[in-house]
Amino acid sequence: MLQSPPARAGQREDEVDTPALLIDLDAFEYNLATMAKYLAGTGAKLRAHAKTHKSSVVAHRQIASGAVGQCVQKVAEAEVLAWGGVQNILISNEVVGADKLARVAALARICTIALCADCAEHVKAIEAAARDAGVILTVLVEIDVGMNRAGVAAGSDAVAVAQLIAASPHLRFGGLQSYQGRAQHLRTPAERQEAIGAAIDATRRTVDMLRQQGLACAIVGGAGTGTFELESASGVYNEIQAGSYCFMDVDYAKNLGADGKPVAMFKHALFVLSTILSQPRTGIAVVDAGHKAVAIDSGMPGVWQRPELTYAGASDEHGRIVIADGAKPPVIGEKVRLVPGHCDPTVDRFDWYVGVRNGRVECLWPIGARGGFS
Amino acid sequence: MLQSPPARAGQREDEVDTPALLIDLDAFEYNLATMAKYLAGTGAKLRAHAKTHKSSVVAHRQIASGAVGQCVQKVAEAEVLAWGGVQNILISNEVVGADKLARVAALARICTIALCADCAEHVKAIEAAARDAGVILTVLVEIDVGMNRAGVAAGSDAVAVAQLIAASPHLRFGGLQSYQGRAQHLRTPAERQEAIGAAIDATRRTVDMLRQQGLACAIVGGAGTGTFELESASGVYNEIQAGSYCFMDVDYAKNLGADGKPVAMFKHALFVLSTILSQPRTGIAVVDAGHKAVAIDSGMPGVWQRPELTYAGASDEHGRIVIADGAKPPVIGEKVRLVPGHCDPTVDRFDWYVGVRNGRVECLWPIGARGGFS
Repeated sequence: MLQSPPARAGQREDEVDTPALLIDLDAFEYNLATMAKYLAGTGAKLRAHAKTHKSSVVAHRQIASGAVGQCVQKVAEAEVLAWGGVQNILISNEVVGADKLARVAALARICTIALCADCAEHVKAIEAAARDAGVILTVLVEIDVGMNRAGVAAGSDAVAVAQLIAASPHLRFGGLQSYQGRAQHLRTPAERQEAIGAAIDATRRTVDMLRQQGLACAIVGGAGTGTFELESASGVYNEIQAGSYCFMDVDYAKNLGADGKPVAMFKHALFVLSTILSQPRTGIAVVDAGHKAVAIDSGMPGVWQRPELTYAGASDEHGRIVIADGAKPPVIGEKVRLVPGHCDPTVDRFDWYVGVRNGRVECLWPIGARGGFS
Repeated sequence: MLQSPPARAGQREDEVDTPALLIDLDAFEYNLATMAKYLAGTGAKLRAHAKTHKSSVVAHRQIASGAVGQCVQKVAEAEVLAWGGVQNILISNEVVGADKLARVAALARICTIALCADCAEHVKAIEAAARDAGVILTVLVEIDVGMNRAGVAAGSDAVAVAQLIAASPHLRFGGLQSYQGRAQHLRTPAERQEAIGAAIDATRRTVDMLRQQGLACAIVGGAGTGTFELESASGVYNEIQAGSYCFMDVDYAKNLGADGKPVAMFKHALFVLSTILSQPRTGIAVVDAGHKAVAIDSGMPGVWQRPELTYAGASDEHGRIVIADGAKPPVIGEKVRLVPGHCDPTVDRFDWYVGVRNGRVECLWPIGARGGFS
């Protein structure tokens, strides 16, 4: 990392260099407390997903708010969390390749770690890595409950994979990974209910079949910020893998509740601070945050508390802001907060969080697991 | 940077850990030589854009192939290049904020540096920074030639800004920044000709008006990989700011030539190496490269030399591959090269280039200017 962080503790927010990734600490803490309070009344615990935040600092804050541990999507994330002292990590994904599996086996010496498999070939490779390292690895079976990504079919096919795991002296069967990612952004409660209802049924059926074979599921994990209310009430899922809830983004904020209004359980806590670079003609301004500062895969960012400004298009290092007719234009040098369309890949573009509270920089937190590592 | 690079020199390509950002060195060198050969017959020199590659290593290779220097889009990129010994850098963009301008002024002590302005306010702030640092800063006027982003109107408005620069004892008027970004991906030669023809006319008119005021344009810069043949033949532009030509991507490869076929002047030299993680059911496979490894803002990546495989959708750390009916499915652990839809933001997701030749890793090059820095 050749470059300096964009801020120092004690600065005013308007002194922070841009682009910068801000956490509104009050809103972030509100989100952590809200999730903890909600899940306290259910049979499920939070295992927050670190693919959102990529930071051992955020992980520890979530664990201090009641999370049992963390999910990650890849080995590099697991390593950064474990090096930062996180003790209970689930790789909610398949891991392929002898080098990567050797790294997972090494992590088993310093923390509680589990990973997923969806076929015999995965189980065989994990077994070889565990045997070579002299450790016991915990393996969950990933089932496909409607996402159409990885995952074996629920039911007997899943049981067959679980039996392979349970039969190995080097492995421990850890339960089911059962995430319906496609349901997270269905906008109406009825759509989400239908999709997750089917996922719950398939998961329950598989858990029951495993039990009949003498295989207990210590973990039945899944759910995200869009649907965790359903999985946590299911009586089947015992771990909730929400990630975005701690930050929120434009896309999740579009999900509607039963009253037809956006669900507003969590607050926007993540922002890309940007500077007006140019105001070249009527109706247009340009900010210094484009593709390389804010993800647009789920839509354009919002402009925070500036209803007269619309982020209309991104190029690599610029954003084009359209100013509403008749509105006062922003001035060059002015700073505006953008609300990312999609928080996870936005975070991945930065090396530092700048934590702000009451208009001041309170902290800098490294985003240790960012980037295209394995 | 907490994590290890994904390869070491001498490995076979299929031993490289994934996801990894590969440069096919033969294709890359071919692209550099092709551009050098092409521009040798024109009145324009290459000032390659480092927003594509973010690396002083690549910059030096381009300069060794005849480029006069580098363009960058922000101060952090300029710093990384200057620290790596690049001697001639143009920030082809406005720079706003006293801290950033102080950094530009500091760079003027160790390399030839210039930046852009599109209004009096920019000029005033740059002048203050130059005066405070005791340096002379070279400033180009950015004109809008149809991109509708930053840039003052061509003609008399641009002349007025140039006169402010020329009148300052702390500044030197450097010429015009005149980039028509919207023309780069227009698919037919006729569309590109029309858009760039208008840009050339506006630029020529402005250069002439400046000359009448006694202001010579040392640099008249613009153009990109999609249109540089037009600007370099214009007799007006003397610097070509192409960036993507060295790597190419799916989007640029869709531009058509006069024969109605894709322009094939440059080769695909940049790839994201990925691994098949799962092959859960007929017709579907999953790779370990999603939003955080490959940019989709200009469309999905291609799958290199595997016409039976289509990259159909990305999630954060997964790509969903659709297998053509009847085709042999890829196997778990198999590695496939993806051709990025858009090279620039894909590069920005990685810390290392893995240079490969003849199936072997030849080198690792750091991507020193990656990330959301200012």
